[in-house]
Amino acid sequence: MDLLKQKILDEGEVYEGNILKVDGFLNHRIDIPFMRQVGKEFHRLFKDDGVNKILTIESSGIAIGALVAQEFECPLVFAKKTKTKNIAGDVYTSKVESFTHGKVYDVMVSKRFLDENDKVLIVDDFLAIGNALNGLIDIVNASGAQLAGCGVVIEKGFQHGGDKLREKGIKVESLAIVEKMDHETGMVYFRD
Amino acid sequence: MDLLKQKILDEGEVYEGNILKVDGFLNHRIDIPFMRQVGKEFHRLFKDDGVNKILTIESSGIAIGALVAQEFECPLVFAKKTKTKNIAGDVYTSKVESFTHGKVYDVMVSKRFLDENDKVLIVDDFLAIGNALNGLIDIVNASGAQLAGCGVVIEKGFQHGGDKLREKGIKVESLAIVEKMDHETGMVYFRD
Repeated sequence: MDLLKQKILDEGEVYEGNILKVDGFLNHRIDIPFMRQVGKEFHRLFKDDGVNKILTIESSGIAIGALVAQEFECPLVFAKKTKTKNIAGDVYTSKVESFTHGKVYDVMVSKRFLDENDKVLIVDDFLAIGNALNGLIDIVNASGAQLAGCGVVIEKGFQHGGDKLREKGIKVESLAIVEKMDHETGMVYFRD
Repeated sequence: MDLLKQKILDEGEVYEGNILKVDGFLNHRIDIPFMRQVGKEFHRLFKDDGVNKILTIESSGIAIGALVAQEFECPLVFAKKTKTKNIAGDVYTSKVESFTHGKVYDVMVSKRFLDENDKVLIVDDFLAIGNALNGLIDIVNASGAQLAGCGVVIEKGFQHGGDKLREKGIKVESLAIVEKMDHETGMVYFRD
């Protein structure tokens, strides 16, 4: 998606440790007109896959998920990272290690909101080694739902999480794949 | 908003401790077509107030905020609850005690995303004693931005956070105000 690549080049900041900060449009301040285009692009990529539910993970996936679900005219479910008083006990869970936060947490989805009648498109902001997506895929599999695929805004290609999922036969569509970043020059290079 | 009140009556569950669970449409599984109507309703209520930025707090506010921001054709900023590697140091912060989680946390917004040129509509899913909204209002005030008002999906009127904000002259619009709940009968009563 050329508009996304241009925004990454214009607004993204590269930090040591392979951190690409895009919080000006993707995960702190959210450029909603742009995110509508993201929603439309994922719809174009998955419109023939029978999707009837969008699944994402709090927090950065939610705005993306909402605008993707709008295009599919279907519900959005977001997996939660901690057990709160307001979630009933009957949940699917998976453990996920966060690249950003450097810790392991439980993600969970209420069993009421995912079942064998669902065909699920998982969406998220970033895909690096694939921990979050793998956790969500585990939850989809445990629920008996079918996985339509995974839609990612920015994939860090050099961490190969996306490649491993594709090798398993999972449809993974990333709107931009970063192949290399250099925090000294600030340059970002995309996979062709 | 009659559609919301009907959904609360049809789908809401009342638990001991004044907990109203609406995670079937508002904060776990999100009914996106319904949430679009919520976005349009907040736009109707605040369209003459010069809003150019929507502010909410992770996680349950984000989907609402995205669909409100879509109506205003403006950016959404969501306040974060913990300091992550991906937020730069220059932030506005406020302390908020969570009714749901029973703990105090810091909320923060990057100084880059809120300033004196902004007229801010704060949106959130619930308003009880008003802790989250007060924290966000503190952040708006610290930034020098103007506060257009607060839009809340469900206000718990019997906890009076909304009334206190209105007494201060802040425009607070709630789409449903629950005046009383009874966890033994499951009944929910709305303010007229």
